[in-house]
Amino acid sequence: MGYRSLDSHTAVDYVKSLDLFPQDATLEGSEVGDGNLNLVFKIRDTQGGKSVIIKQALPYLRCAGESWPLDLHRTILEANVFEIQNKLAPGLVPKLYHKDEELSLLIMEDLSHLGVMRPGTLEMRKYPRFADHISTFMANTLFYTSDLYMDPYEKKAMVKKFMNPELCKITEDLICSDPYYDSEQNNINPPLRPYLEQVFWKKKALRLEATKYKYAFLTEAQSLVHGDLHTGSIFASEEETKVFDPEFAYYGPAAFDSGLLTGNILINYISWDGKDNPVEKIQDYRNYLITTINDLYTLFDQKFVANWDKDATDVMATVSGYQEFYMRKLFVDTIAFAAMVMIRRVHGLAHNIDVDGIEDQERRKDVQISILEIAEELMMYRESFSTIHDVTSFVKARIF
Amino acid sequence: MGYRSLDSHTAVDYVKSLDLFPQDATLEGSEVGDGNLNLVFKIRDTQGGKSVIIKQALPYLRCAGESWPLDLHRTILEANVFEIQNKLAPGLVPKLYHKDEELSLLIMEDLSHLGVMRPGTLEMRKYPRFADHISTFMANTLFYTSDLYMDPYEKKAMVKKFMNPELCKITEDLICSDPYYDSEQNNINPPLRPYLEQVFWKKKALRLEATKYKYAFLTEAQSLVHGDLHTGSIFASEEETKVFDPEFAYYGPAAFDSGLLTGNILINYISWDGKDNPVEKIQDYRNYLITTINDLYTLFDQKFVANWDKDATDVMATVSGYQEFYMRKLFVDTIAFAAMVMIRRVHGLAHNIDVDGIEDQERRKDVQISILEIAEELMMYRESFSTIHDVTSFVKARIF
Repeated sequence: MGYRSLDSHTAVDYVKSLDLFPQDATLEGSEVGDGNLNLVFKIRDTQGGKSVIIKQALPYLRCAGESWPLDLHRTILEANVFEIQNKLAPGLVPKLYHKDEELSLLIMEDLSHLGVMRPGTLEMRKYPRFADHISTFMANTLFYTSDLYMDPYEKKAMVKKFMNPELCKITEDLICSDPYYDSEQNNINPPLRPYLEQVFWKKKALRLEATKYKYAFLTEAQSLVHGDLHTGSIFASEEETKVFDPEFAYYGPAAFDSGLLTGNILINYISWDGKDNPVEKIQDYRNYLITTINDLYTLFDQKFVANWDKDATDVMATVSGYQEFYMRKLFVDTIAFAAMVMIRRVHGLAHNIDVDGIEDQERRKDVQISILEIAEELMMYRESFSTIHDVTSFVKARIF
Repeated sequence: MGYRSLDSHTAVDYVKSLDLFPQDATLEGSEVGDGNLNLVFKIRDTQGGKSVIIKQALPYLRCAGESWPLDLHRTILEANVFEIQNKLAPGLVPKLYHKDEELSLLIMEDLSHLGVMRPGTLEMRKYPRFADHISTFMANTLFYTSDLYMDPYEKKAMVKKFMNPELCKITEDLICSDPYYDSEQNNINPPLRPYLEQVFWKKKALRLEATKYKYAFLTEAQSLVHGDLHTGSIFASEEETKVFDPEFAYYGPAAFDSGLLTGNILINYISWDGKDNPVEKIQDYRNYLITTINDLYTLFDQKFVANWDKDATDVMATVSGYQEFYMRKLFVDTIAFAAMVMIRRVHGLAHNIDVDGIEDQERRKDVQISILEIAEELMMYRESFSTIHDVTSFVKARIF
């Protein structure tokens, strides 16, 4: 048969051919994605109310047409990641119901009863279970896919299976390179340009540290990372947390996930300087964000160590002192990647709405400079922090 | 057709079907390997004198029979490595004439006019071109296969192509784990056992440092390393140097090659304590070995930097200070891997004849302890050395 793209009717027929709904169910399909990279359909049982999501890769960027071909394999890679994450962190990712390599599609749990976390944080929503949930997600997916636990043959097969050069290239360029020079791909708030030219792009020491982490990203095949773990990749409510969109997954430094997430929360923390809210409200939310970062990292560290103590298989993983060395490096590297993602979200290609939502360009610029300054300090002083509380106290002392 | 193993007659027929010799040549074939893991045939033109070597993988370990199956892919992996090495370091590896995936064989240049270096060093032979040649081999193969030079897509395809879990497992166990505890796979000179039990296996600090490098070996996909670069994998004469047997090749830390080679030369350096030779002869040879190590590392460093300055493609590879950081890490890691290979050759599974050739067990033990002590000091003080001359001066101060 080969690949063919579905529409809302053929999507319903496709789902009927599977065993996901009762035989006599009346199914209704609708396209719910923006349909540029992928087709996304919601298929709903009009009686039972149960629904599933179909995500199908498009062979080319729809807005650009056939001149911009895309790798169809990405949806199967995503399905393969979901399979592993569902095993290691059940309940914290969408359930995977089906994958079809020929059609480059996957069928997964519909999570539309939950909201994406990023818009929630823009409204100062709090997620009381988030730190606990996300720390379990990270501790399990990052420990149990590493050499500390896995059979060395299976781990290498995983590295191979999750080679993801197209998406890695995006990170290599947009996070690890472009922000450190006047790249055409950058997306610069005009009033910020003088600061970048006269100050930021002259920071040689910072650029050197970023380069070390670019090469860590390129070469360090430590764990199967999500690769894009920020509040825009997480559905959440007060009770639930579901991590989605793992299309950037590959074998890389474990700290990339914890760093990306921490950096994104810090961006939200700083961004309130550019918005009009009562001081008490801002301080309350900032305290919540700091508690969240403290809790999620502390729990992540504790759970990772607990997994290690319980399940490490490699004879050398129990060598006295190595766990401390490993956890310390994971912590320091987390700060470094947090700093890098803060920087890329200021003037790299893709920004965060937390800051871009500040309409006044000058005010936005001031917030952006704060983010760049704090990110630089985090990167340069990363070895001087002992615990995540030191990191958040440092940020709080700078901005509250 | 599928796989079939050749004999000296079918090997001649096979070569005749290719275009390697003149049509009317009279070819003569003989099996020249020990034929346990691989069949090795020499095919010679009885008139012209030209000859080639066929290496064919056996599907099982011949001495153990079909109960010990072997991965047939290894010969093609080896051929693929030769292709790259021939491009990057022409003249320093055997020429590859042919590869056949179905038969798991490769045909390469016959180097039997050269001797293997290790037996040469046991006779105190000197190789005046060696440092220059091997530094070129390392600088070219390790730089041009790294992210500093390669297109990121091609580099990742290379990492995939050269996944080598079976052979890596051998290194992970025999070099990186077993020597640090009382593993059944160790091969221990009986008089050495008390030292291992009472002293060596109690060295927690050393074991911790070794563990860090085990994980570097497992996770750091930096360059396509030879993976077993010692004097037993090198054919040499006064004029020529040819690196062979790259079956352990994979994407790993570049320092693994430079470290393995350095460690093996240091073993030879120390081993003379257990042999009866006039002091002047030993001192002369030791001076030669020290000069060799100094030259090969200094030239390796210079040539790697020259390749970098000339050909680095990544925008971040030119960031001020990064080259110094990289070369410093390469140097420190070289010392660490040198130490680890010195240790594994003392009481791991596979020893070096340099030391095992000392017939008196007690005398051998004394040399083995010297190697273990010096290796430990190199590992623990590795950050305190600035140049390779510091390293060799340190060894010379301990033993001359």
